[in-house]
Amino acid sequence: MLALTILGNNSAIPAWDRNPTAHILQSLEECYLIDCGEGTQIQMAKYKIRRSRLHHIFISHLHGDHYFGLIGLLTSMSLLSRTQDLHLHAPAALEQIINLQLSVAGVQLSYPLYFHAITTENIIVDDNKITVKSFKVKHRIECWGFLFTEKRNPRKIDSVRISAYEIPKTFYEKLQKGEDYITKKGTIIPNEEVTVAGIKPKSYAYCADTIYDETLVEKIKFVDLLYHEATYLKNLQERAAERFHSTTIQAAAIAKQAEVKKLLIGHFSSKYEMLDEFLSEATEVFENTELALQGVSYRI
Amino acid sequence: MLALTILGNNSAIPAWDRNPTAHILQSLEECYLIDCGEGTQIQMAKYKIRRSRLHHIFISHLHGDHYFGLIGLLTSMSLLSRTQDLHLHAPAALEQIINLQLSVAGVQLSYPLYFHAITTENIIVDDNKITVKSFKVKHRIECWGFLFTEKRNPRKIDSVRISAYEIPKTFYEKLQKGEDYITKKGTIIPNEEVTVAGIKPKSYAYCADTIYDETLVEKIKFVDLLYHEATYLKNLQERAAERFHSTTIQAAAIAKQAEVKKLLIGHFSSKYEMLDEFLSEATEVFENTELALQGVSYRI
Repeated sequence: MLALTILGNNSAIPAWDRNPTAHILQSLEECYLIDCGEGTQIQMAKYKIRRSRLHHIFISHLHGDHYFGLIGLLTSMSLLSRTQDLHLHAPAALEQIINLQLSVAGVQLSYPLYFHAITTENIIVDDNKITVKSFKVKHRIECWGFLFTEKRNPRKIDSVRISAYEIPKTFYEKLQKGEDYITKKGTIIPNEEVTVAGIKPKSYAYCADTIYDETLVEKIKFVDLLYHEATYLKNLQERAAERFHSTTIQAAAIAKQAEVKKLLIGHFSSKYEMLDEFLSEATEVFENTELALQGVSYRI
Repeated sequence: MLALTILGNNSAIPAWDRNPTAHILQSLEECYLIDCGEGTQIQMAKYKIRRSRLHHIFISHLHGDHYFGLIGLLTSMSLLSRTQDLHLHAPAALEQIINLQLSVAGVQLSYPLYFHAITTENIIVDDNKITVKSFKVKHRIECWGFLFTEKRNPRKIDSVRISAYEIPKTFYEKLQKGEDYITKKGTIIPNEEVTVAGIKPKSYAYCADTIYDETLVEKIKFVDLLYHEATYLKNLQERAAERFHSTTIQAAAIAKQAEVKKLLIGHFSSKYEMLDEFLSEATEVFENTELALQGVSYRI
């Protein structure tokens, strides 16, 4: 089970009470921070995101509206005496910026910070709960998208049906993994007879800042939730292309081609105060679209 | 005439809806930004501070709560196509940090940014309105205070009394500067006879983050408004000293010794939600004390 909380949905300049980009993906045990615009630590406090559940931060690219809040968050966690590991996945140049800022302040972090430079499309996190893949997106500078996929959830023991068989409890873990049970007499009790499927693993794709790019489709095919930027309304398609951004209907077209379950659009240009047209334009192309709104959690 | 607007009054970590340090000193024509914690550009928008009136930014030291908002403000002004000059006065190492952040983003600012490294106690701004002096304060790392002093305001012509004399209007500018007038017959008309004093020039001293340090007194003697940090209440004097910070009564003692008109205290530790004790402790030592509260403008 995953849920996505939006901490910032504006592009470039903070405006209209909209903060720059930051997403929190939450599983039952963990939370993952994706991009970290200025003010993210304040937004995290506001929406009660516990820093202690955060062990991985992903930065898509080094435009300021996607990372200027990071150094403040990192140093605050140190001031609060964090001791847990923290893994930072980001374009290589960020490491020097952080080290420089820590060194001029004479700060040594209270916790181990592991910097992982993203250099290629690859699996960058793979633990017993989730895998995270980086994929290239086309923007003005080096920029990465992230695909989060839950690990297959264990099957559940059907307590009523299993009571009809003599299966030792020590075998339950294997049943949960899908194995059949073979009795001493050699009779096979098929797994499906005594278990039911676990919750279907969910997936979330974050496409960062990107020009309209159909090569994305294969990378995010069939995800449960797709976040695709929509900086502009459809009438500004040329400006969007010039700046390597997308429009509402371009985001929706990618969602449609990728046959995703749901589309979330955000990274709205500061020129727009009202957002209703973003939704109406996108839903015309891909119906199951929602606006990324600050403070809202989208269950995946 | 000067007024000081507080954009952030908290130390280290944002908490209790208090932002990290940023002050705006406003004269009739200009505004001066002193320190720039994370979120300052958002606070400037909230309190309607016009960026176009800003030509000088002063950074006291390179602890994050005093400058992490700077890069966001600088790049936002560029995104908004600013063309006016901007002067940044700060410890030398900040230049490299800014240049690095601009370069990884491929950003060239739309306006000229002049970096002035502060290296000694000196007059760092001196125009026809104001002088700004840097002075050393004692903190864990290199740290500067700033003394703002308005230029002497021109004397005002007393229109009733001057009508008794035949003084050509072309001489009025000299009268405003304080010169006497000598008639063709050689009679001296003393300046005080036909003019009254202009508004008294005001002064503001910003002491940044500092341990209790009586050598400050001479540097800020008699200012109209003194901002002195008070990170802790008086019972935490030892902790304050360890961290090169001050308490309420230490700030007030400096104000008293310096015989300032008014004291403003701020940079409150995140451990305190309520601030009333800060005021009651400080006023016991120096009566004309106020708390630095966000969004409030203090007329000097």
